Amino acid sequence: MYRGTAAGFLSGIEVGDIVEITSEGKTFKGVLMPRNELADDLHIVIKLDTGYNIGIAVGDKTEVVLVERRGAVQAAADVEIPVNPNLPTITILGTGGTIASKIDYKTGAVAPAFSAAELHAAIPELSSVANIKTKMLFNILSEDMTPGHWQTIACETAGELNNGSDGVIVAHGTDTMGYTSAALSFMLTGLGKPVVLVGSQRSSDRPSSDSAMNLLAATRVAVSEAAGVFVVMHASTSDDYCLIHRGTRVRKMHSSRRDAFQSINTLPVGKVTEEVEFFEDCGVRKEGKVSVSGRLEQKVALVKIYPGMSEEILKGVVKSHRGVVIEGTGLGHVPADVLSAVEHAKVLGVPVVMTSQTIYGRVDLKVYATGRQLLDLGVIPGGDMLPETALVKLMHVLGQTSDPAKIRRLMQTNLCGELSDVSRPDVFLR
Amino acid sequence: MYRGTAAGFLSGIEVGDIVEITSEGKTFKGVLMPRNELADDLHIVIKLDTGYNIGIAVGDKTEVVLVERRGAVQAAADVEIPVNPNLPTITILGTGGTIASKIDYKTGAVAPAFSAAELHAAIPELSSVANIKTKMLFNILSEDMTPGHWQTIACETAGELNNGSDGVIVAHGTDTMGYTSAALSFMLTGLGKPVVLVGSQRSSDRPSSDSAMNLLAATRVAVSEAAGVFVVMHASTSDDYCLIHRGTRVRKMHSSRRDAFQSINTLPVGKVTEEVEFFEDCGVRKEGKVSVSGRLEQKVALVKIYPGMSEEILKGVVKSHRGVVIEGTGLGHVPADVLSAVEHAKVLGVPVVMTSQTIYGRVDLKVYATGRQLLDLGVIPGGDMLPETALVKLMHVLGQTSDPAKIRRLMQTNLCGELSDVSRPDVFLR
Repeated sequence: MYRGTAAGFLSGIEVGDIVEITSEGKTFKGVLMPRNELADDLHIVIKLDTGYNIGIAVGDKTEVVLVERRGAVQAAADVEIPVNPNLPTITILGTGGTIASKIDYKTGAVAPAFSAAELHAAIPELSSVANIKTKMLFNILSEDMTPGHWQTIACETAGELNNGSDGVIVAHGTDTMGYTSAALSFMLTGLGKPVVLVGSQRSSDRPSSDSAMNLLAATRVAVSEAAGVFVVMHASTSDDYCLIHRGTRVRKMHSSRRDAFQSINTLPVGKVTEEVEFFEDCGVRKEGKVSVSGRLEQKVALVKIYPGMSEEILKGVVKSHRGVVIEGTGLGHVPADVLSAVEHAKVLGVPVVMTSQTIYGRVDLKVYATGRQLLDLGVIPGGDMLPETALVKLMHVLGQTSDPAKIRRLMQTNLCGELSDVSRPDVFLR
Repeated sequence: MYRGTAAGFLSGIEVGDIVEITSEGKTFKGVLMPRNELADDLHIVIKLDTGYNIGIAVGDKTEVVLVERRGAVQAAADVEIPVNPNLPTITILGTGGTIASKIDYKTGAVAPAFSAAELHAAIPELSSVANIKTKMLFNILSEDMTPGHWQTIACETAGELNNGSDGVIVAHGTDTMGYTSAALSFMLTGLGKPVVLVGSQRSSDRPSSDSAMNLLAATRVAVSEAAGVFVVMHASTSDDYCLIHRGTRVRKMHSSRRDAFQSINTLPVGKVTEEVEFFEDCGVRKEGKVSVSGRLEQKVALVKIYPGMSEEILKGVVKSHRGVVIEGTGLGHVPADVLSAVEHAKVLGVPVVMTSQTIYGRVDLKVYATGRQLLDLGVIPGGDMLPETALVKLMHVLGQTSDPAKIRRLMQTNLCGELSDVSRPDVFLR
């Protein structure tokens, strides 16, 4: 894994060994971490006792001392983790993504599976919070996640909860985590326990990885007294605390920052330090079976509007789909040129839901003439729903009913926190 | 305009008259403003001397006194505005939208035109900043703005600047103002004067309208020593100051808030109070002719990716367009299912540019396997360009050349502030 300059300092030392590195007058001790194939050869990365990874630049005066050989001797998967009967039990479902694929840092391989033992080795604090069961559902990049995968995750989540798990964590790639959290929110009914999606913006073989802290925070939420579907991720670019977002209101708002996940049009519902603090009532843990409302109409499209857009694109989409979510401009507008495609949807009985590409705020089709025309054409206003959440919700609603009036009513009803009343002021811009 | 309860207090008083209203122990004096047809009948709106509109709730004890009849007596358009030879001259080009359509508040009509005299009447402070020439190019809702309109605005802007105007303001609807400001940025070459786009999130017949302050701030920037294309809008929900955004870096980030316009992946370039302050060097006013690089390839599409997306949508778009900008997930990813459509684009020689739906951050196609596959398929990474700006830039670049290598190079070159070097840290998240 290490090559060039860095490898020169590591002869006889293996990833997983405990080392002491002295560089520029400072000494650091920790577990030698693997390096990504694309990383430079001028840094050595170790995991400190705090669980935090740091990268140390190597130079002429750097010294690396082997403190304890552990890398090859004791594969993490072989360790037996004792069950603590006083702690709750949670299940971590692996689906892929940075958090799952690199958590197996001991071997350095980009391994698909992560066992409870491996997690224990990587993040020992986990064992003081919960007994952890792990299950690898699949190992895909989150951009490859489909509605079919959401169904599997929903069924497995319900199964774990109904079989005694006190909470479920879904370890997920960050790219589409907001879509999946919305899907689970709509699909899991009668949910009396926490379901927590968690990801990592920086893999655990990199300095400043957020995976350990995010997973530990997610575990704390999974054993909390709340009930519902949440996303737990870093609150800032420091490692000070994590935020809890409602599954239907969260969006990845940065390509790489650790605090990329933001609650939109609402405040985060809570924060996680050593403790879990909920800012608002999000449902309370209760007994009862969880059901899965699993049917999804997969032929639903999300179309973003832009100047000069050909109406043919939207016409084509309307013809080949059973529902369409439009990401209009401003309060929910489309160019007059595109209206005929919306008319087409009306004729074909394809429901069209309007959202806004401004991300923040709400659509209002009553202010301008274009909006009123859209209302006349039967367009369903999406309120302050995220376009991505509206897409997932329309898949869900069309999976339950084909009655136009019911579709319209459900899309405008707040089912699980995705939609706020028009009279409620925007409490939180960004 | 006024009806019901409010109208009862206004007998014999016309919109445009100066009135004094006493309500709940407080007295306000100002110009009676018109009310929107959809507004309630329980408020009277007046424009204070400060230029700020307030809505006063009327009740049993409200008194309204006519102070000066001005509404019908003196139509604003009849007033002669003296030219002040000591002031610079600017041109305001009207294109439609809230700021232009409602600025004619004297008559209360949703009038398409605004004359210099009407502006003078509405915002008297303007005349102490510049001599103002106005020209109504068209009066359309900004969602109906097309690349053809951008060409007209660019030509008219260059014409005004080359004929002696010291600056140009483009009054524009807010929905697509960011697209137009990007288009003008790419199309105007040799620009040695300020071109300022300005809009209004609340029309001037509403309390808390931002139109007067935004237009005044835009005028200050239009006579400043800067050169370039800027957007000037409210900085916050208070009326404290306006921000100056680079034309290629600005996005409408809220459907209704007055501070909806935000610089993305960069700081705003300046602020406007009574003074104009630039935070960074944005080009300095200089002599010389402005040219228009007016050719745009209009067959360019912007396609947002989502889970479960059918590759047929992207295939259809590729077939019918000469360039495609993809709004991928995270660092710039698409589902494996969609890759064949990207391959199709490669075969057809249709350039594909990758941007991210996270809005903030930059794409990086070298981190994950999906990204590397996309690079192999010839996808052009869009860096930290806004998806909307990438769309407009690709229209511009394809208007100049059909040479694939040149298209690739230009799309990855910073032409007017739209793209920052990968080594530059993100200075500003949001």
